[in-house]
Amino acid sequence: MSFSLTILGANSAQPAYGRHPTAQIISLKNRNFLVDCGEGTQIQLSKYHIKRSKIDHIFISHLHGDHFWGLFPLLDSMMLAGRKKTLHLYAPAGIWEFKKLYRQLSGNFDYTYPIVFHELHADESRIILETDAYTVSTIILEHRMPCTGFLFQEKPADRKMIGTKIEAYQIPYTQIPGIKKGANFTLPNGTIIPNNELTLPPPAPVSYAYCSDTAYTESILPIIQNATLLYHEATYLEDMKSVAKERGHATAKEAATIAQKANVGQLIIGHFSARYHDLTPFLQEAQTIFANTALAEEGTVFEVG
Amino acid sequence: MSFSLTILGANSAQPAYGRHPTAQIISLKNRNFLVDCGEGTQIQLSKYHIKRSKIDHIFISHLHGDHFWGLFPLLDSMMLAGRKKTLHLYAPAGIWEFKKLYRQLSGNFDYTYPIVFHELHADESRIILETDAYTVSTIILEHRMPCTGFLFQEKPADRKMIGTKIEAYQIPYTQIPGIKKGANFTLPNGTIIPNNELTLPPPAPVSYAYCSDTAYTESILPIIQNATLLYHEATYLEDMKSVAKERGHATAKEAATIAQKANVGQLIIGHFSARYHDLTPFLQEAQTIFANTALAEEGTVFEVG
Repeated sequence: MSFSLTILGANSAQPAYGRHPTAQIISLKNRNFLVDCGEGTQIQLSKYHIKRSKIDHIFISHLHGDHFWGLFPLLDSMMLAGRKKTLHLYAPAGIWEFKKLYRQLSGNFDYTYPIVFHELHADESRIILETDAYTVSTIILEHRMPCTGFLFQEKPADRKMIGTKIEAYQIPYTQIPGIKKGANFTLPNGTIIPNNELTLPPPAPVSYAYCSDTAYTESILPIIQNATLLYHEATYLEDMKSVAKERGHATAKEAATIAQKANVGQLIIGHFSARYHDLTPFLQEAQTIFANTALAEEGTVFEVG
Repeated sequence: MSFSLTILGANSAQPAYGRHPTAQIISLKNRNFLVDCGEGTQIQLSKYHIKRSKIDHIFISHLHGDHFWGLFPLLDSMMLAGRKKTLHLYAPAGIWEFKKLYRQLSGNFDYTYPIVFHELHADESRIILETDAYTVSTIILEHRMPCTGFLFQEKPADRKMIGTKIEAYQIPYTQIPGIKKGANFTLPNGTIIPNNELTLPPPAPVSYAYCSDTAYTESILPIIQNATLLYHEATYLEDMKSVAKERGHATAKEAATIAQKANVGQLIIGHFSARYHDLTPFLQEAQTIFANTALAEEGTVFEVG
């Protein structure tokens, strides 16, 4: 698979029952993206045989400690392992304040590899990383502090050339890239052959939406609409709906409602409160609304596409 | 046992082979003292069934991240678990700077329990905690930055009254506490019975000395002399002695030499570099100098007295 998600941790702030705080690896086009970095993330990476050296981009959703206390130990270890490659860090400005204070207190050391800091703003959704093949955009969440989710979205691939048409219309090879991008073809006599007679549509691009931490909010529906895979936090069960709302969190039922309204392919729920040992009720509650739901269990790999 | 040491982690900065960074629990007179708090400490506490709620004192030796990145997640979890009791934190001033920045960036929350901050100074050894039964003192180490070890030392117990003497000399019970503290007894006729005829000496007080991180330095010998148990870092083997010195660390042989010169009862070595998988050579190297040496393996409990 060229696009997958590995859960490293999906507990809320207080670790419980051996469950770790939030961290995920998104593998996309042979790159590993680390999303959030709770305490112990580097140890989880090691446990699941994911190389630190293959991570060039780290995304931090917000400044609650259970989403970032594992970052600095990881950055330290990358240095100790002799890293030279540039690392891109997408995070709220406060993370860079920590880095500066740490540097100052630890004797003005600096990392031996370049870190490019990309400050995140939780005001409006924007593309923060773009290549020929995919984009990463922020999702504006509703939490007790500014908090962004992340949408990893493949770009539509080129249309597929129908091989027999090349010979039938004597299409020069130089024109094929343009036709794959949607151009028509004009015969020497001026007749225009429309693109849809020459090509087949590409497979639908796939996407992964990460939404943690957030209260129930339908404002995210437009950006996550039709996502192949959605991770939505579900800190509590529905009977604690008012506590969830007060603390800027969601219930399993609410997460499933969002999944249903956004018409996603699959829902993964996580960020479980330490008050719950058995997570089965989360799955049951969500599945009454949205059947294709899974629990974010550590070590599980979900295929996006 | 009323005085013991539990190893939670004893790897150097870069976690390796499942080994965690530095953290230890000293159990003394029904209290748990946490010494250093590397990443993952609260998860290790949970693994070894040590309750966070029983920790009222935390000591941080210095400001390298592998000795403190687990602190803030632990403080957060204590809050989330509803802690109300005062916590005493002994650490370099920089730790309190982190706490202030974290508080500010996380929305000006404050911990729901009092934290009394005791700033450590690495200039000269001093008593930082004293009760009727024990003292905790700093040990000035030699590292790349200011760094203190900690000496946990029982106070001498009272001398033991010889029961038959009470009747023989008709000693009033009101005078017994004084005699246990070393007083003589005067008979009605003025004859003085010396204390050593009335009492037996108490068992020798026991002590535990924690020395991480440090280069080889004999300046610590006076304070750790005759310690019952010594933890001394041994980041490298002797063939990397010059690297060790340059980085403010020690070798297994150097740790053993310190143990021998200080005439301690037992030596534990730790803070192993990630370059070593098999730790047997550390033990072998140290034991050529000081036979009663053990490796600081996670989960091991050492009895001090």
